[in-house]
Amino acid sequence: MTSDAERFCVSDLKKERANCSFDREELTNLMDGGKKMTEIRRKYAQSFLSDPVYDDATPPDYLSHEDLYGNELRKACHTLRKMNKEGISIKKMTMHGPRGLMQDGNPLMLHTGMFYDAIVGHGNKEQREKWLPLAEKADIIGTYAQTEMGHGTFLRGLETTATYDKSTKEFIIHSPTLSATKWWPGGLGKTANHVVLMAQLHIDGKALGPHPFMVQIRDLETHRSLPGITVGEIGPRAGLNSNDNGFLRFDHHRIPRTNMLMKHSQVLEDGTYVKPPHAKLSYGTMVITRVSLVFHACLQLRSAVTIATRYSAVRHQSELVPGEPEPQIFDYQTQQYKIIPQIASVFALFFAAQSCGKTYIKAMSNIQEGDMELLPELHALSSGLKAIGGKDASAGVEICRLACGGHGYIASSNLPRIYGNTTCIITYEGENTVLLLQVARYLIKSFRSGELGTPLRKSVAYLSAQSTSGEINLTNEGLVEAYKKSVSAMVAETEGRLRRLCDSGLNYHHAWNKCSVSLVKCAEAHNRYYICDQFVKNVESLEVSPGLRNVLRDLCRLYLIYHISLNEGMFLKAGVLSPGDIEILEEEMSELLAKLRPQAVSIVDAFDIDDKLLNSTLGAWDGNVYQRLYDEAMKSPLNKTDVPKAYKKYLKPMINAKL
Amino acid sequence: MTSDAERFCVSDLKKERANCSFDREELTNLMDGGKKMTEIRRKYAQSFLSDPVYDDATPPDYLSHEDLYGNELRKACHTLRKMNKEGISIKKMTMHGPRGLMQDGNPLMLHTGMFYDAIVGHGNKEQREKWLPLAEKADIIGTYAQTEMGHGTFLRGLETTATYDKSTKEFIIHSPTLSATKWWPGGLGKTANHVVLMAQLHIDGKALGPHPFMVQIRDLETHRSLPGITVGEIGPRAGLNSNDNGFLRFDHHRIPRTNMLMKHSQVLEDGTYVKPPHAKLSYGTMVITRVSLVFHACLQLRSAVTIATRYSAVRHQSELVPGEPEPQIFDYQTQQYKIIPQIASVFALFFAAQSCGKTYIKAMSNIQEGDMELLPELHALSSGLKAIGGKDASAGVEICRLACGGHGYIASSNLPRIYGNTTCIITYEGENTVLLLQVARYLIKSFRSGELGTPLRKSVAYLSAQSTSGEINLTNEGLVEAYKKSVSAMVAETEGRLRRLCDSGLNYHHAWNKCSVSLVKCAEAHNRYYICDQFVKNVESLEVSPGLRNVLRDLCRLYLIYHISLNEGMFLKAGVLSPGDIEILEEEMSELLAKLRPQAVSIVDAFDIDDKLLNSTLGAWDGNVYQRLYDEAMKSPLNKTDVPKAYKKYLKPMINAKL
Repeated sequence: MTSDAERFCVSDLKKERANCSFDREELTNLMDGGKKMTEIRRKYAQSFLSDPVYDDATPPDYLSHEDLYGNELRKACHTLRKMNKEGISIKKMTMHGPRGLMQDGNPLMLHTGMFYDAIVGHGNKEQREKWLPLAEKADIIGTYAQTEMGHGTFLRGLETTATYDKSTKEFIIHSPTLSATKWWPGGLGKTANHVVLMAQLHIDGKALGPHPFMVQIRDLETHRSLPGITVGEIGPRAGLNSNDNGFLRFDHHRIPRTNMLMKHSQVLEDGTYVKPPHAKLSYGTMVITRVSLVFHACLQLRSAVTIATRYSAVRHQSELVPGEPEPQIFDYQTQQYKIIPQIASVFALFFAAQSCGKTYIKAMSNIQEGDMELLPELHALSSGLKAIGGKDASAGVEICRLACGGHGYIASSNLPRIYGNTTCIITYEGENTVLLLQVARYLIKSFRSGELGTPLRKSVAYLSAQSTSGEINLTNEGLVEAYKKSVSAMVAETEGRLRRLCDSGLNYHHAWNKCSVSLVKCAEAHNRYYICDQFVKNVESLEVSPGLRNVLRDLCRLYLIYHISLNEGMFLKAGVLSPGDIEILEEEMSELLAKLRPQAVSIVDAFDIDDKLLNSTLGAWDGNVYQRLYDEAMKSPLNKTDVPKAYKKYLKPMINAKL
Repeated sequence: MTSDAERFCVSDLKKERANCSFDREELTNLMDGGKKMTEIRRKYAQSFLSDPVYDDATPPDYLSHEDLYGNELRKACHTLRKMNKEGISIKKMTMHGPRGLMQDGNPLMLHTGMFYDAIVGHGNKEQREKWLPLAEKADIIGTYAQTEMGHGTFLRGLETTATYDKSTKEFIIHSPTLSATKWWPGGLGKTANHVVLMAQLHIDGKALGPHPFMVQIRDLETHRSLPGITVGEIGPRAGLNSNDNGFLRFDHHRIPRTNMLMKHSQVLEDGTYVKPPHAKLSYGTMVITRVSLVFHACLQLRSAVTIATRYSAVRHQSELVPGEPEPQIFDYQTQQYKIIPQIASVFALFFAAQSCGKTYIKAMSNIQEGDMELLPELHALSSGLKAIGGKDASAGVEICRLACGGHGYIASSNLPRIYGNTTCIITYEGENTVLLLQVARYLIKSFRSGELGTPLRKSVAYLSAQSTSGEINLTNEGLVEAYKKSVSAMVAETEGRLRRLCDSGLNYHHAWNKCSVSLVKCAEAHNRYYICDQFVKNVESLEVSPGLRNVLRDLCRLYLIYHISLNEGMFLKAGVLSPGDIEILEEEMSELLAKLRPQAVSIVDAFDIDDKLLNSTLGAWDGNVYQRLYDEAMKSPLNKTDVPKAYKKYLKPMINAKL
């Protein structure tokens, strides 16, 4: 905050900030991953935020779809140039670059993201040495083309083929059906000239499954699409509209053998197929992508709660006590109940994703030593967290938007856009329901192993009959125990139903399907337990000052009770909590909301989101909400003239027609 | 359906339709309110749907904000002309006009809606005779201006003033602060030349509360805003973007005394204020608006489930049994669980809104006889239904959208737009949380009256200790009893907490606030009970053929169990259902989903939504999803050329720069 901002912020926010009971900078550092990281982030951010190239004279929301694309391409190209000039590598930039500056996605987002990562993840040494520098210098512009019109999460169903032609040492890339059309990749429609393509490998009539290929799709001089290739954009979406998401079709298009990315599998000149040493090695990218999505979801939720919290402190409405002045709407318990649990959710998801990240690092180092044991655990953890993270963040953003009333519906609040950019997490990188059913498969398998006395992996150890459990009481540890017991009971019940259906003669797969609504609930409950457990552990083990720990403890406590209250049936059915316990907890929740309310503005301040990145009339640091709403409205091209052009064309003739 | 459509629809849908176990036309008639009404609806619809003026060469999603406004104004003006030519009155048109043809709202929507209704509802005889024909003939174009930047649901907080000047017999209309700016009215920004304005009436220094005034804001010849008036549009929103929602400020603007709408209150020439005979008479409009919003929410949900159901029958994905062909995704229980309860929800909301409408008619006729007794009941019912209807429909639309995976995120699915047009119902015409707290107030008051032995109104009679309740078992009637008992227990618990807080010395209003999260839950549960009760009663009492009744019974049963399962804690805490009961019900739900699945396509077919109104690549009657997605994408202006204009301007220079 600058002293100017301090001076001009509305008095409500000044008062809120005076309540702060902890060291705000300490919290900022914690969320950045250390003091040093805060510095780096701020340094990079400043270099972008002070650059006038990113300032739009007309807000993008007013532009046509085509102009929006052009405008974001302008900024994206400037960004790549700037990075090269300042010697920032693509990797550094995706880590530290303020992606928020191009909020609707940008045409080069996949180039610096998944295209680059795919070369790193799938290319062998020579391939990486060849293509990474070209990508870095923007000599080639790429994207990652996997999803098709007809298939998304179910990778094995992809229809695009890459058939090896021994005689010419080429792959023939082909889209055999309409539904084989590649569909969705960002930057594919009009920007990329290369793609990393996932296609079904065929050699000598044998299908070998999906593999990655580097395919040039546009001429590097003219940018025209190459013969045998049809490419275009898929049209507007619920969000990310300047990303030129595209489609791509191949008509027997040939590429050299050496364009198959061969870090894992290889095809030799004579058509010999060489399997990867470890079939599941390529898992790693998927896992880390999912974990990073949880962090991404978390960032979106941070923005939304920052906006809703500040607005709630500034907006005065109605009467709490008749005759008294209109209170800040944040004084209403119902408003606190909407927003403060979402603040807690930010921390819960953050700590859970961090823990999962640590498991990933451990698993990767184990794999180096040939130990694949952690992979199923990691797969289940990351799948479940991605699902819950996407769902919770989307729901949370929408709760925040609705908590801002009508003004939350206005684009200049930025809340509609944040929602559009968050809800897609539920669908991409593995559709949530599919992922949760995979988690459920792990739970049922573990439960059955546990029944046979096999020792279980850490995150599911509690499902074993042998697991020694702690006491159930209303302390945090006791509530985590209550979670374990009740998820366990739920898994046991569902497994029992599954078994009975099979015993009654139903095929296992049909029985599974008949239980799948319950199985999804098991997976969600398991992940909630994991998130709660990690929240409790982190809050107690973090090296932080007492002031900050107290706030984190309150948030953690609120999170636990909030989710128990939302799912009270599970605890009551398992008999681990009584109706009386739940009543006590809900009364405590009421106290916690009141206790956290005065800290809320300071907590979201500690998320340290620059006004330009937050991009919200309702959430700006100074709280000058009504003036900002008015000023933003005045930027509408329709407001440039008193009488709109369309008046003469349509309205006047109708009025004059004397109907 | 035409025979052509029949011929070309994909085989999956043909098979689904062959399953139909009921008379589809009978269901269509039921939802329309009778055979005759179906005919009228289709007749009006056909006249609009066959009119090429409504066909957009470029889908509106590609247009700039300004062009979008112009395009919809074009269609809206044509509509008014057409109506006049064909002799359709505004009232008829708003009832039967296919508003779906202008899906993002249109600049004349408030003119034919709330402006017209406000004159009817607030104008005295002379005023109605003066202004209604002008509105009908579009000699004046109006909107309704109530909400301000600083105040929405809390009407008493409005800041715009209308001060009576005896000397000139005028009102001086003024916006004393920035937050007094009128903000939101549709059509206000650039289209309307008149508004019905709500402003605080002041006479001789005395504040008399909000009253309605007819105010001209633009010159009828030049369309320029009048001196002393600042008017413009508020900028883009999460939906309804061609509505030119606007803002309006007054600087001591004078209007004649006779421009106050004086059906209820009057101001005489000498400044005498004459109160309305019945203070709450103007309630009626609010009630009927809220009921109509439930129907509106219902219509949106109908569109969304139609799209999701048809798409689920056409989309094949993954494996149910390994090695077998990819099944229709509708065969997955998890997919059925997402969609079929939303179909049930359409009927539940429909019947509840119908019942509430009947109570309204009864209340209005009672009022004619001076009996205001039904008003509190009606107010609570309509407020609660609007809140639940808006919330359920929004959540349901979003579940449907997500059930369509990635393609549900594409604008051409129409699901993002439907969501944008539904979620606003939560906020406008009384913010949901505020309304639910009003319902809660009615519940607590009724509960306390019941304790004193006072007889209670029908919808809350069950809260009385004296209420004789039926047996709780797992029949529909038994489950409705279970609802009554558990909502009653919840209200009693919350009332107890409220009392204890007061006893401990807390001011009643602060105690109320401290219980408000629970109070909202009570209100929601009460309304759910009411909806379930009405569903059960309607299904049994409707005059329909056995085939249709069976389907409706299954939907009703599913609805009951679905909501019990979602709120199982409430039933367990009250001890009215056991964990065993809930397990039995959930297994029954699994059977119901399987049983209803083959009827689902036929049920949504019976909603009889024309392809042009549904406007969805995923939901069209023929199920030709992939071809439609592709064809719609080809309409993108960016796809008109292979190389985009922005390439030369931004991409080529960057690539050539050899970073």
